Amino acid sequence: MTPSEQDPDRVQIFDTTLRDGEQSPGISLNTSEKLEIAHQLARLGVDVIEAGFPISSPGDFEAVQAIAREVHGPVIAGLARIHVGDIDAAFNAVRDAERPRIHTFVSTSDIHIEHQMRATREDVLGLTRAGVAHAKAYVDDVEFSPMDATRADVEFTAEVCQIAIDEGATTVNIPDTVGYTMPQEFTEYLRRLYELAPGLRDVVLSVHCHDDLGLAVANSFAGLLAGARQVECAINGIGERAGNASLEEIVMLLRTRAADVGLRTGVVTQEIARTSRLVSRLTGYPVQPNKAIVGRNAFAHESGIHQDGVLKERTTYEIMDATTVGLDANSIVLGKHSGRHALKQALAELGFEIDGQALNVAFKRFKEIADKKKQVTAMDLEALVTDELREEIPSFVLEWFDVEASSRRPPHATVGVKLPDGNEATGSSTGDGPVDAVFRAINAATDQQGRLREFRVDAVTGGQDALGETSVVLELDGVAGAGQGVSTDIIEAAGRAYVRALSNAVRRRSVAAQAEDLTAEAARASRLSTP
Amino acid sequence: MTPSEQDPDRVQIFDTTLRDGEQSPGISLNTSEKLEIAHQLARLGVDVIEAGFPISSPGDFEAVQAIAREVHGPVIAGLARIHVGDIDAAFNAVRDAERPRIHTFVSTSDIHIEHQMRATREDVLGLTRAGVAHAKAYVDDVEFSPMDATRADVEFTAEVCQIAIDEGATTVNIPDTVGYTMPQEFTEYLRRLYELAPGLRDVVLSVHCHDDLGLAVANSFAGLLAGARQVECAINGIGERAGNASLEEIVMLLRTRAADVGLRTGVVTQEIARTSRLVSRLTGYPVQPNKAIVGRNAFAHESGIHQDGVLKERTTYEIMDATTVGLDANSIVLGKHSGRHALKQALAELGFEIDGQALNVAFKRFKEIADKKKQVTAMDLEALVTDELREEIPSFVLEWFDVEASSRRPPHATVGVKLPDGNEATGSSTGDGPVDAVFRAINAATDQQGRLREFRVDAVTGGQDALGETSVVLELDGVAGAGQGVSTDIIEAAGRAYVRALSNAVRRRSVAAQAEDLTAEAARASRLSTP
Repeated sequence: MTPSEQDPDRVQIFDTTLRDGEQSPGISLNTSEKLEIAHQLARLGVDVIEAGFPISSPGDFEAVQAIAREVHGPVIAGLARIHVGDIDAAFNAVRDAERPRIHTFVSTSDIHIEHQMRATREDVLGLTRAGVAHAKAYVDDVEFSPMDATRADVEFTAEVCQIAIDEGATTVNIPDTVGYTMPQEFTEYLRRLYELAPGLRDVVLSVHCHDDLGLAVANSFAGLLAGARQVECAINGIGERAGNASLEEIVMLLRTRAADVGLRTGVVTQEIARTSRLVSRLTGYPVQPNKAIVGRNAFAHESGIHQDGVLKERTTYEIMDATTVGLDANSIVLGKHSGRHALKQALAELGFEIDGQALNVAFKRFKEIADKKKQVTAMDLEALVTDELREEIPSFVLEWFDVEASSRRPPHATVGVKLPDGNEATGSSTGDGPVDAVFRAINAATDQQGRLREFRVDAVTGGQDALGETSVVLELDGVAGAGQGVSTDIIEAAGRAYVRALSNAVRRRSVAAQAEDLTAEAARASRLSTP
Repeated sequence: MTPSEQDPDRVQIFDTTLRDGEQSPGISLNTSEKLEIAHQLARLGVDVIEAGFPISSPGDFEAVQAIAREVHGPVIAGLARIHVGDIDAAFNAVRDAERPRIHTFVSTSDIHIEHQMRATREDVLGLTRAGVAHAKAYVDDVEFSPMDATRADVEFTAEVCQIAIDEGATTVNIPDTVGYTMPQEFTEYLRRLYELAPGLRDVVLSVHCHDDLGLAVANSFAGLLAGARQVECAINGIGERAGNASLEEIVMLLRTRAADVGLRTGVVTQEIARTSRLVSRLTGYPVQPNKAIVGRNAFAHESGIHQDGVLKERTTYEIMDATTVGLDANSIVLGKHSGRHALKQALAELGFEIDGQALNVAFKRFKEIADKKKQVTAMDLEALVTDELREEIPSFVLEWFDVEASSRRPPHATVGVKLPDGNEATGSSTGDGPVDAVFRAINAATDQQGRLREFRVDAVTGGQDALGETSVVLELDGVAGAGQGVSTDIIEAAGRAYVRALSNAVRRRSVAAQAEDLTAEAARASRLSTP
């Protein structure tokens, strides 16, 4: 029984950060990073995690399977086009979950049917009947999406949805695939759909909106007011192009206006800020300071700006309390004299259960940082631990570096890198700048030809002795690799990020070589056509 | 005659980037930066530029006055609380504009009247009558805003609006000050307001929505559908807390759905991308990759990701053409052999008319970059020129630097800085990292005690030899200063940014010292209570 069946005002949150979000250009999460996000989504209390698109690549399959096996609580969904091969892969990936779901889709807009599928409406009806039945033979929980529905003929879409329902779909999701619709138009569209496909009253109606015109949250909200009880969304609003509806905005909208709207979710809002930071850090996608709910300034009167009005009476300018979304986490402060036990306890408060060797490594790094910073806050710890926990796969490690930079001669770097076989190699290079010189020296030491694609530096924490986190995306023989590094020293952080990105790219290159059965072409084509 | 009077379907775009946007924490633009943005807003074709809040500080007054005098085309508005002193200051700041506007406001919500103003509804009626009449004695074009209207009693708000109209207000703007309302609620609110204040039919109704719940664009759009013909918005959606409605989203929504909605603006959409980049660069506020319209991935199928569908038929996944928002600007490419004339021509195409010494400086920097990068694109040029043009005020200049960084000993930096008197001073320091060491060395050379508050690095352009832009915010004796620097060398870029930030802070410190009549307290209080 779904939450919505128990309570007609309960909205299910379907998180697609790891599927639609991970399809964003430049994002390439490995399995352990996806697991880390999925565990946090479970802590956040989402109802469904769409963990990936298993047919699209062996890496996606592996990640969905790992999440299905290890993450408890939410329904775990795998995406599949409405073909037997896709549905089989999705089932094999999610079958070990406590509550597995297959999410299958096919376009109902003529523009997609004609130009992308090169098929007919008749084909779509037949595919839907066969595909949903095939999925239903595997699992009870089947979700069906008529892709590009908002640009499709509503009567044909209703016919397709009714077939999906007749074949056993328990959730029907209406995607605004290209982010084209408007609230009043979407409301009317869903009203017509309910009229034309009466079976929709017996299943959960879902909406999936993109933000191309800045209306993803408003359209999703219009969908809920029209009767939908599942909303598909992503942390920080990431996803294809302008992204999906932001999970945090939908959730806080329903919560803040609960008295007037009467809908609620099961999300533990206090976990929102941390989830946002984790996703931003691992994807390398920054959050704008003025992003609603999770931007650094969304509650700016909380931090420094003493608003006359707020001081006199909070509610004069405040409709939400920052602690509701977990923005009070900076209360834990450790210093250079804090011991291993204090660190372990502080980490436990943050939700990281760390012991043994991982704790030793974290403690060593903590001490290094505490030597440089007077106060180590919860956000520093979170950054450091997340940084360290990523390091479980044997790969290149930056051991040391020497850099000279000057405005009067080219910069020069020498580095020592530990290779996977345990030996240390050194390399030297000049470059366009000191960071570029370090990257080239690492290439020389590892004998790899990494080419930088993106380089980004963020201050994780504020002030003079802020920790910086660098993100690197590089390309190695056509394979992309991403890595992050945290330090008060930008060159050290950059070097750490680069060797990790290089390690990831090397690993991916060997996975790619093994996956001979899936040509890159097919993988790319299958990634494209999603809701 | 306003555009809306000429054409009932014409929506006026009121840009508040320089007023509400500039009030965001951490943003501190100087007059020349504000002028640069205002000139670009005029090129973009906005109808009204709200240039600032003249009473709030001498710097704000000076910037509004400079914009009123130098920027042609749009109406230039100055904000004022509904007090004689504010209105006088606003008038004095905008009086030299071709078409000056005074925008005055007072709260109509009981929560603001009681707690912030410590006044009564009667007081508000009296203030409105006197204030609007006072403004009207100065200028024909008077805008009135009942602050926090969406949380106020609609009948009282209507009464206040009718008084403002009777006293001569030509635009009445309804602010959703705390970002609380929802589209269906706002529609109903405005419908009631039209009923209760019949005079609204004779003036331009405007809306001003904040994005705290992710609904700023949707609420603004609901306002337009309910009859508003002016929308207040900001580039990149910056502004108080979660910011204002994004100008680019509103404009492209109206344009993309014009056939169904029937409204249009006068915005030259091809200038959107450049305006967004300029505002991001000068404010130091990054744009999320997945931000609608102006995010780097908003049109991601344009750049690299070859979508199966889009290749077969563009419209399968594309509702807007990237060239419409000016994303084709990377077509200009210069190289190291390009001469001064080619540079001047390329800059002219970008809208920069540069001659004489400014061209010499730009050409020198162009050559430096062309030595490091094979191809210098339009975006590189834009970054460089914007960088150089900021340099017109005599201040500290970073002449040279030497840095050593190593994982095995503390980093060390020595710098040479040209002082305002023309002499060169040197300074040395260690630090937590090489960038920190450079900053401390600059402090030593200039004998200033700047303290770093924020440090950010962005890749302006992509690839191995990307130009990086660093943004620094520092604090000097309680005064904030911001600066940017562009280079392929991160340390050079950081050093340039730091000396500029320091120069700005020194200048602000002396301005602050002169402004004895305005205590910091009063300035802060006046900045708070705006729509």
